[in-house]
Parts: sequence; structure tokens; C-alpha cells
Amino acid sequence: MHESTFPASVADSGSQPPGFVLPVRVYYEDTDAGGVVYYASYLRFCERARSECLRAMGFEQRRLLEGGGPIFVVRSVRADYLSPARLDDSLIVTSVIGKLRHASVCFLQRISRGGVLLFTAEIKIACVSASGSRPTAWPGALRECFRAQLYPSNLS
Amino acid sequence: MHESTFPASVADSGSQPPGFVLPVRVYYEDTDAGGVVYYASYLRFCERARSECLRAMGFEQRRLLEGGGPIFVVRSVRADYLSPARLDDSLIVTSVIGKLRHASVCFLQRISRGGVLLFTAEIKIACVSASGSRPTAWPGALRECFRAQLYPSNLS
Amino acid sequence: MHESTFPASVADSGSQPPGFVLPVRVYYEDTDAGGVVYYASYLRFCERARSECLRAMGFEQRRLLEGGGPIFVVRSVRADYLSPARLDDSLIVTSVIGKLRHASVCFLQRISRGGVLLFTAEIKIACVSASGSRPTAWPGALRECFRAQLYPSNLS
Amino acid sequence: MHESTFPASVADSGSQPPGFVLPVRVYYEDTDAGGVVYYASYLRFCERARSECLRAMGFEQRRLLEGGGPIFVVRSVRADYLSPARLDDSLIVTSVIGKLRHASVCFLQRISRGGVLLFTAEIKIACVSASGSRPTAWPGALRECFRAQLYPSNLS
Repeated sequence: MHESTFPASVADSGSQPPGFVLPVRVYYEDTDAGGVVYYASYLRFCERARSECLRAMGFEQRRLLEGGGPIFVVRSVRADYLSPARLDDSLIVTSVIGKLRHASVCFLQRISRGGVLLFTAEIKIACVSASGSRPTAWPGALRECFRAQLYPSNLS
Repeated sequence: MHESTFPASVADSGSQPPGFVLPVRVYYEDTDAGGVVYYASYLRFCERARSECLRAMGFEQRRLLEGGGPIFVVRSVRADYLSPARLDDSLIVTSVIGKLRHASVCFLQRISRGGVLLFTAEIKIACVSASGSRPTAWPGALRECFRAQLYPSNLS
Repeated sequence: MHESTFPASVADSGSQPPGFVLPVRVYYEDTDAGGVVYYASYLRFCERARSECLRAMGFEQRRLLEGGGPIFVVRSVRADYLSPARLDDSLIVTSVIGKLRHASVCFLQRISRGGVLLFTAEIKIACVSASGSRPTAWPGALRECFRAQLYPSNLS
Repeated sequence: MHESTFPASVADSGSQPPGFVLPVRVYYEDTDAGGVVYYASYLRFCERARSECLRAMGFEQRRLLEGGGPIFVVRSVRADYLSPARLDDSLIVTSVIGKLRHASVCFLQRISRGGVLLFTAEIKIACVSASGSRPTAWPGALRECFRAQLYPSNLS
């Protein structure tokens, strides 16, 4: 189960988890006729957080795209929906690095509202050549940034 | 007013308008917490209809993109929301060519449900060079297709 | 032409337009395979700006929805696409009130990047009863807020 | 690993998997600046397939919403991205029922193009009371429909 990758102390305490933090507001575009946030919208929020996390590390994805550098593709998503977010909610997306491999990385992401955890996801991203076909090692500088954000319990 | 570009007889009769017809089903992704279809979703439906219209004429946009051919960009939207569509609705998008110019074309698009008109739009598309910077004449074959679909009242 | 509703001095100067200002970042979700922002995404950005504008005036739309109060529906969109926005762009959405009527209001919205105007829209919103069927006068407090944000040239 | 819930014979053969089949066309709205389908769009395609599957069984979700009946909420997503879909692609979404419980069901969904598997997901849906708060048993008729579509290997 992926939830165990979030240390119990964090999951239980409801305290502000570590890692990169992005606030997200819920607008009409994110909701559906059920009156809550549409299930795919949480993945959009998570992608925004990963992009801002990369930007904070000094990496703009468009420059990578245009420079013919390696690109990052989602390989898998393991997501759990614990409680629904709603229109006008002010959410917090937190992101840490759970696993770092030669050509992939695993983001552990959580969405909460007022300290209440609503959604957790473990999203595996691969680094591939610009043509999109072959796994490629992370650029050294990015690898170092990821390593610095590795979640402590995953350092073993 | 852009509605006048749809001849009154069509607008009034509620009869099946002429032109290219695409059925569209409304899913949760298209709706919002107000219980109706989100206002930008109608533009997605219209774009699908234009894409299918081009495909029916023998033009696949991806091949144009990859072939370095001209690309089509939206220049303006004039849209009127007459009555809301809802989850599970079975809609019809109809598209005709309202004006054909050297390097632009105007699609007149309407969305209806069971003969009731819900939405009309006049969407101007420009043909530009692959780099996106300069207006470019329509490829001859495409121009002929557009001409064949020109709405009669606009033939003058 | 709706562009004339933006006073020439503002459109020409490229100076920071007046009104409510919302910064918006462009993410992958907003773009398409053409490499630019998808045309319907601009309407999502505009809706976010209107929501934040209402929130700044003290009105949360969810509370209105849940309280059975009047709801706001889009009646028309007049939008012009001047230049494309791209991945990672940092955009500014500005919103002013162009016209205020008994049961409708017209938002003039502009999206720019680094002082360059990319997109303008005139979006008419109607106030209707919770059932969605009948035009309803704006709540007095909201009407006063709109009036205070009326664009000067429209005060006549 | 969730992939093992798809019997190896189906995963390996590339033959048309069993279950409910929905064709989906890829439009600009589904893609991103990376030139491929945006990762959250696959979840939209899967939701369309589940909605059509329910409709084929005689259940319209809007009628359930409006009738105060139980509603269906996503509890978890386990998704693997095997190969990217692109603009204009003609995709097939197949859906089978993997597990049926008192108040939840697991959809096994696969997206393929020309016999090539691009995406697989295991999506757990819970049946909850209209207020959204409590797990509720499936309506009897729906339960019978689900049972009839249970993937054979899961009947034990």
C-alpha cells in the first residue's frame, strides 16, 4: 500500500508535512456536477506542484523541451481519495521525493485543507530522451536537487 | 450581433441546421459545481467538431503539425449561451463556414439538444506559418473544401 | 467591435491596466500539442479572475450556491486572441466592470505577459434565481461593489 | 502490483480484451505542450467509459444525483502509463469489473491504440449515500449488472 510510504507520524499528526508546498485554490473549472472536485483535477494540482518544485530548483520545463534536453514523463500514479475538496476551498499540495533512481523519481504528494488530509498520491516520473523513447540518466544538477529533497525515511 | 450571421430561418425553425454534424455526450468532466456544463467546455466541443470537420475533408491536424505545414490558430470567439446543457445530455454540434478569406475562415457553430438551441458561436481561425508568426494562404485543397461548405447566404 | 470598449489609451500604452489583478502561471494542463495555451484555457483563467474579484468583494460563490441565493451565469463571450501564451509563462489577468445593468454585468478582461497584451475578452454575466430560470436583480451589496469598480469611461 | 489483476494472457496477447468497449478520439484539449496526451486526460477517458458502461446497464448518473439516490465516488486510482497517445489518435477504452464488494467495485480499465496497450488502470469506486458521507450497499439491480460483468478470473 502506498500510504505506508508516508511515515505514520506525518499521516497521523495532521501537522504540516515536510517538502515543497504549493497553495491551490479550487475554481469552478475543477469541480463537477457532483458538487465536488473532479477526480482528475487532483492530478492537475499535483502536476502544478511538481512543476513549481522543479522551478524552485532552477529547472523550467519549457526550456528543457525547447533545448532538446531530456523530458519527464509520468510512468505510474497511485492515488487515494480520502475526502472531497469543494468549490472555493483553499488547498495545500505538499511534495517530497520518495525514491530516486538512475532514470526515475517518485514524488509523494498530499493535498490537504486546513490540516485535514484529502488526497495522497505516489507518482513515478521517468527521465527519457527528448525523442521520448529511451530512459536517460537525470542531469547531474537535477539529481542533486532531488537528493536534497529525499524524504528522510527513504535515505536508507 | 453575431447571431444574425445565422439566417433567421434556421435560427427560428429549430430544424436541423445544415453543415457538418458531430454528436457529443456530456460527462462529469464537462460539468461544474453549478450543476451545468462549464462555460469553457462548449469551446472544447466546438473544437472537436472543427477537427472532425477537417478530418472529414481529409486533413489530419497532427500530420500538418509534424509536416511543418501551416497551422490553424483561433483569432476570435463570439459566443452566446442561450440555455445550459447538463450531465448525460446528448448534444449535437453543427458547423458551417460563414466567411472564407485568403488566410482566415469563420466557423459558425451551434450546439443543440433535442432540437433546442443551447449555444451559438462564431469562431475565426487564421492560417499561419508553422512558426506561428505570419498569416499564410490556405492550402489550395483545403480552400476548395471550405468553399464547398460555405453557408449559402455567404456566397455573395 | 468589443475592443473599443477598452479605452485606446490603455490598449496602446501597455501600461498596467486598472481593475482587479490576478497572476496566473501556465502549466502543462493549460497547453496543447500545438505548443501553446489551448484556446479554452484563457476562459478558465478569466473565470478564476472573476471568482477572485468576487471574493475580494466579500462574495464566495459556494456560499451563494448553498444558500439558495442568486447564481451567476455566463450569457456571452467576445474574445480576441492577439498572441499565444506558452508553458511556464507568468501571466496577469486584469478585470474591470464595463457595464452594470439591473440583472447583468459585463466584465472586461485582459491577459498579458510582461506588459504585452495577449488576449482580451468581454464577458457578460447574468444574475438569475437559484433555479436558474429567471433574471434577478443583483443583491444590493454586490451591486455597490460592482459600481465601485465600474470602468470610468462607462460611468456616463 | 495492480497489473497482475489483468490476467497475463490478456496482457500478453494484445488481443481485444473483454468487457465494455468505448472508442475515444484524441483532440487538442487532451494533449499538452509535450506533444502527447496529458496524464490526467486518461482518467477523463476512463470516466467516460465507466459512465457509458453504467448507461448501457440502464443507469444514468444524473437521474441518480437528482433522485437523491446513492452516488459513486472514486476511492483510489492505480494507473500505469506504458506508451503515449497523441493528437488525432483513435483509442479504445475497455472496462471490466475486477472486484465487487458490498459497497464498492473495482473497474479494470485499459486504453489501447491499434491493438497496442498504452495505459492500464484499476479504479476503485465506492457507493455512498447522497450526502456523500456513508458507504451504502449497491442498489440490487446495479449489483446484478456488475456481477454479470465480473471478470471470470475474479469469480472465485
